[in-house]
Amino acid sequence: MKVLKSYRSFGGHTEFLEHHSWATQTTMKFSWFLPSTPPKGCLIWLSGLTCTDENFIMKAGAQRYLEEHQLMVVCPDTSPRGLHLPHEHDADDFGSGAGFYVDAVTEGYRDHYRMYSYVSSELYGLIQNKFELGDRFAISGHSMGGHGALVLGLKEPAKFRSVSAFSPIAHPTDSPWGEKAFAGYLGDDKTLWAAYDATALLALGKRHPKEILIDQGTKDIFLTKQLKPEHLLAAKGTQAVDFRFQDGYDHSYYFIASFIEEHIAFHAQHLS
Amino acid sequence: MKVLKSYRSFGGHTEFLEHHSWATQTTMKFSWFLPSTPPKGCLIWLSGLTCTDENFIMKAGAQRYLEEHQLMVVCPDTSPRGLHLPHEHDADDFGSGAGFYVDAVTEGYRDHYRMYSYVSSELYGLIQNKFELGDRFAISGHSMGGHGALVLGLKEPAKFRSVSAFSPIAHPTDSPWGEKAFAGYLGDDKTLWAAYDATALLALGKRHPKEILIDQGTKDIFLTKQLKPEHLLAAKGTQAVDFRFQDGYDHSYYFIASFIEEHIAFHAQHLS
Repeated sequence: MKVLKSYRSFGGHTEFLEHHSWATQTTMKFSWFLPSTPPKGCLIWLSGLTCTDENFIMKAGAQRYLEEHQLMVVCPDTSPRGLHLPHEHDADDFGSGAGFYVDAVTEGYRDHYRMYSYVSSELYGLIQNKFELGDRFAISGHSMGGHGALVLGLKEPAKFRSVSAFSPIAHPTDSPWGEKAFAGYLGDDKTLWAAYDATALLALGKRHPKEILIDQGTKDIFLTKQLKPEHLLAAKGTQAVDFRFQDGYDHSYYFIASFIEEHIAFHAQHLS
Repeated sequence: MKVLKSYRSFGGHTEFLEHHSWATQTTMKFSWFLPSTPPKGCLIWLSGLTCTDENFIMKAGAQRYLEEHQLMVVCPDTSPRGLHLPHEHDADDFGSGAGFYVDAVTEGYRDHYRMYSYVSSELYGLIQNKFELGDRFAISGHSMGGHGALVLGLKEPAKFRSVSAFSPIAHPTDSPWGEKAFAGYLGDDKTLWAAYDATALLALGKRHPKEILIDQGTKDIFLTKQLKPEHLLAAKGTQAVDFRFQDGYDHSYYFIASFIEEHIAFHAQHLS
């Protein structure tokens, strides 16, 4: 693990790092904020399409609240980098910057696009060991990363004490973004698709023991075509979900910044 | 005035605008945050070298505190744009992105690089009229913009009730950045240079009636060569200055974000 940049902030440190990943067989970048005392727990933040490890840590204003609760955040990049797979760099919604937090099975991609394993096993284990955190992990994310947070939380409830999301792609197998990405990473077998779809996982009976917090802006231009939270709410069964429509907010980091304090307080409850 | 982008944030709105400027004879961009109720006052924020109207409003996390105090901020761009003057785009520290908040007198630049007039008269008047603010203005900025805030505050104390700065270029006539910019915008007459130098203005007896707040990181790589706050402190005479060295902080927006709450609270005292 190599620290590339380090900035003192709010008494702690915002840092940018890289390491060689066994899951993706590439160099992976990530950022973290470390509070001024040993962290009591770690929030894993998954970013959306086109993002890198920089967007959240630079724009969300989370450091103040993380320091307040003595939590760390770690923000992985959204895909492997430095490869030249077929069609990898053709569009914003597939390949680089668009890993969708799945383990790919298709030719070429299966050797590197293993973001599910990267986040839930490799990065998780690395942080867990370095900071002796046990299971004191929470997960959240935005858009494609909100999808990732819901899927990881529902599939691995023992690893994540709490789950939240901003504007998640709630039903990727029924969204143009999700269909394109899943076809590219997972091929034609739609039973495999369901394993990475929060709405399908809920319909299959997957549950997280704690209430899941979801914020969604009412003026989000992707709401009806791509995100479809109403599908998730219809499928949730006994899963407790605190779903909040936030009036007038859109899909941007200005929305995330406005409510990140509440998400961090929510996770802090479960992590301390 | 045309609103280019609008984002709901913290109950108010973060917006990006442009207008035709009489001061610069160009289209000028700026951003602002408007709280959820009519603003009680306006903070003008001046950004540093290479910045645009976007950096502060995106990275400083100020909106939360502005909403709390029901203040607005307005962030002008750091120079005119869209021109092709000699050497204007050759370097990061002169010309585009580097207006230094002076009214230029040199050939070509004197027709457009009039950022002092743009900020202190045109933008000030525009906001004052639109929001009926009277003299309820404060000014702050970072690096080149910290220099700008100190100079505007000392030269026009009746227009700005309070003044603060982060990591200001405190003595530009004795700094490589300042010397290059002033030579290019103001020519060889160094009496003109002094009129835009906070240390020189203090030495000449200029005062702001209120204590000026300045934060400076101890690990700022520009501290000894470019910023030289000790020159300002030596020249300040009877000017009240709350100068704070912040241990371990650098020149970045992570530093600004860490202390912007205190600067906004400081200005709120004077504006309400």
